[in-house]
Amino acid sequence: MSRASRRQFIGASATTAAALALTRRSLAQDPLAAIRDEVRETHDEGVGRLQDWVRLPSIAAESRAMNEGCEYMMELARDAGFENVTRVDTKGHPSVFATLDAGAPRTVGLYFMSDVKQADPAEWSSPPFEARMVDKPGLGRVVMGRGAVNQKGPEAALLTALHAIRGAGGKVPVNLVLIAESEEEIGSPNFRDAVLKPEVRAALSKCMGIFMPSAAQDPDGGVTLSLGAKGVVELELVASGERWGRGPKKDVHSANRAWLDSPAFHLVQALNTLVTADGDPAIDGFADRARPVSAQEKAMLDEAVKRRSEATYKKMLSAEHWAHDLPFRPALERLMSAPTVNIEGLVAGYTGPGGKTMLPTRAVAKLDLRLVPDMTYDGAIRALRAHLDARGFEDVEVNPSGGYNPTSTSPDAAVIRAQVAVYERLGLDPLLWPRSAGSYPGCVFTDEPLKLPSGHFGLGHGSGAHAPDEYFVVESENPNVAGWDGAVMSYVEYLHELATIS
Amino acid sequence: MSRASRRQFIGASATTAAALALTRRSLAQDPLAAIRDEVRETHDEGVGRLQDWVRLPSIAAESRAMNEGCEYMMELARDAGFENVTRVDTKGHPSVFATLDAGAPRTVGLYFMSDVKQADPAEWSSPPFEARMVDKPGLGRVVMGRGAVNQKGPEAALLTALHAIRGAGGKVPVNLVLIAESEEEIGSPNFRDAVLKPEVRAALSKCMGIFMPSAAQDPDGGVTLSLGAKGVVELELVASGERWGRGPKKDVHSANRAWLDSPAFHLVQALNTLVTADGDPAIDGFADRARPVSAQEKAMLDEAVKRRSEATYKKMLSAEHWAHDLPFRPALERLMSAPTVNIEGLVAGYTGPGGKTMLPTRAVAKLDLRLVPDMTYDGAIRALRAHLDARGFEDVEVNPSGGYNPTSTSPDAAVIRAQVAVYERLGLDPLLWPRSAGSYPGCVFTDEPLKLPSGHFGLGHGSGAHAPDEYFVVESENPNVAGWDGAVMSYVEYLHELATIS
Repeated sequence: MSRASRRQFIGASATTAAALALTRRSLAQDPLAAIRDEVRETHDEGVGRLQDWVRLPSIAAESRAMNEGCEYMMELARDAGFENVTRVDTKGHPSVFATLDAGAPRTVGLYFMSDVKQADPAEWSSPPFEARMVDKPGLGRVVMGRGAVNQKGPEAALLTALHAIRGAGGKVPVNLVLIAESEEEIGSPNFRDAVLKPEVRAALSKCMGIFMPSAAQDPDGGVTLSLGAKGVVELELVASGERWGRGPKKDVHSANRAWLDSPAFHLVQALNTLVTADGDPAIDGFADRARPVSAQEKAMLDEAVKRRSEATYKKMLSAEHWAHDLPFRPALERLMSAPTVNIEGLVAGYTGPGGKTMLPTRAVAKLDLRLVPDMTYDGAIRALRAHLDARGFEDVEVNPSGGYNPTSTSPDAAVIRAQVAVYERLGLDPLLWPRSAGSYPGCVFTDEPLKLPSGHFGLGHGSGAHAPDEYFVVESENPNVAGWDGAVMSYVEYLHELATIS
Repeated sequence: MSRASRRQFIGASATTAAALALTRRSLAQDPLAAIRDEVRETHDEGVGRLQDWVRLPSIAAESRAMNEGCEYMMELARDAGFENVTRVDTKGHPSVFATLDAGAPRTVGLYFMSDVKQADPAEWSSPPFEARMVDKPGLGRVVMGRGAVNQKGPEAALLTALHAIRGAGGKVPVNLVLIAESEEEIGSPNFRDAVLKPEVRAALSKCMGIFMPSAAQDPDGGVTLSLGAKGVVELELVASGERWGRGPKKDVHSANRAWLDSPAFHLVQALNTLVTADGDPAIDGFADRARPVSAQEKAMLDEAVKRRSEATYKKMLSAEHWAHDLPFRPALERLMSAPTVNIEGLVAGYTGPGGKTMLPTRAVAKLDLRLVPDMTYDGAIRALRAHLDARGFEDVEVNPSGGYNPTSTSPDAAVIRAQVAVYERLGLDPLLWPRSAGSYPGCVFTDEPLKLPSGHFGLGHGSGAHAPDEYFVVESENPNVAGWDGAVMSYVEYLHELATIS
């Protein structure tokens, strides 16, 4: 059933609607209860909203369905009640800017991404773009598909919250400014430009803060409230006979290795200098500006280690040992505070089955570097370039494809305090977490000129971002983990809290 | 026109044939001239034989058309006059064994390969499996396609020589034993087994020697007569979280790099130990048994450097500098005498366009190692394993996929002296070359138990083996370079020389 026909079906079920109306709480009696009823009644429609969205994957890395994804994002926003929904063209793929004027005193920003990571169907147990309902033992029923948790699931839950408020006859308690980009998964190369367009910047500057919908619960139900994120640089290192002036300038038979240098080994040698024997970053000056872990952050980590399960993390990651064989507490500290140099991919010469006796002229390493405050995107690239130059790798190309600075928000910001208040009211004791080890372009909001507090919020659980079998829990077996309705309601509660927090 | 219809067409052209008959030399008058006339008359049929063969690519690395290729090889042999043509099954893909009993006193072995390297059509200027006639400035008309020179062109030319001898009414002057494998391009993993089958071994043991048809001329027309070839090991080095017990055992989000080790960097670190800073082999004990360059070999190199053009080699290879910035003479010596460690390919994690922030659990390097006498295939693998083990890379898998020992034949062997005699009679001054830098499984013949002299022979020029735009010259612009007819005739002359050389 399409989204439209599902809506018609629900609209046309007069008898069902009438029957339900008898048991519904009125908005005047108990606003949240009335909205909760509406969420429950429109459960299938809400989950369908997520499933349909997963079935239209926009993949920036492959320039796949970018216009369709933009149109779809605009339609989702309009359906949810946004009035001014416009496409923001950039040098790359477009963003969507939308506002919802509820006539409220306060305005809150929403940061969405409409794109997803690539997915290789061969690696999935359920087709990545079919968004099937799958039973996951111990978790319950999940929607499995690319983008289920990163980030369409939480975003669709937030949109469903807006539908539910309206459906229950209410009004959104704050004005909303939505900015949705479509290049998050390639490092948001043009998002800053979109955010700083005069009309977008003007709208965002009225916001008390901004947040991205997120499934904050781990598989045990614990909630983590992140106060920032590492920055990231995505780049390709390229060694080639053409640039090196050594080895062949085209692929040749590998017999010639005896008298020709190998650009692929040149790349290996360059890569080898980027990490210590233990695999830690060894790029000169890379982490000079890395801020030491503060006493407040250490206290958060001390709390975290008591409340998080090392075994759960290891199981989720299929890992036996942390780097350096660290115990859990220092490993957690590294997760939050260590800059990293990672190989995302290696490509050179013949990559198919078996072998091929060739001497390739070109070799590529896809890297990501993660940055902590006060490291910067530009500084990391400069350090890498200088490091390679100092070691005779002047010819090795450093081709950044995207990324951004780290981002931090104070725990005292209203958007953060409102999160804590909601979680606590729902009986959860959120864990304050200094910094996500992953990245999001929050710096676009937290850096000059906007300097907005920025965060992630939302109940629910999912996993598998950037990996096969990504999922988002819809019917939860664990009472401590929110399913779809709980995730939706968490946004309803948060918006109300933002409207009133002092 | 198919091969069959082309034959019918030529056979049916009674008036043309009658007209030609008037100008033909009889076999009794001048046997070679009569065969030469036949070669000229059947030129299109001969070239068509090559083109049709290129259009049926058997690619062992992809298990592509292996049965069809075997059937085709058998048909080619039967058409050329072989009587006993049998398929030799192996653990891998089949070989073809065939004999031609000419009632001659002497028997000569023929080594063919029926498979070709992979080809990516996107990299070719002419479709690799269409065998189009292409104009190549400075060279003439060429057949362009995968296998054109490696090895279908020379092999088809030899078969055409047998057709021509018969077509002129003559008899092949030696008995022939053909062994054609179909896994040369994956390192001949099962060829020794095929050669040592009792009936094959028995037939080969009657041979005075064996040779593979080959386009021995460089673009300037110079002829190189190679007295052996390096050995080779093709293998994959694999680092994985599974085997290492560190890092993730599945692909995970690259944010986890902060607390998880990277199998891809582990592979890079292992690879880095395999070569010196200059890229030379650094595997412990790898080249301990490498035989020093002999005085006879040095004399051959001294001759070679006078007669070969460094500029031509550099142009062919799109290279500016030899390894170590060596001058031509020592670079040539390296080409012939240096064991090598080469990266054929690198594959890890995300290999598509753009980036993908993942921490891959597995990384693969496809390597080839080239061996000189008296290094051995088994010894090289043992040395590599021990080298890795000694450096903490016990977990890195060494997965050989094929290869063999080096091979050497004395310049005093009759099959070699016959080559020199033919080349000299044709006005060419062949350059004796101690050892090809590429590899072929000649050791199967030259090692125990057969201990047959083994070589390559043939006029003609081609290039692009294992690379895009592979070609074989059919109509030569350069009078010093044989075209198709000259290549065919070189085999006729060689077979006659083998029949009579003292």
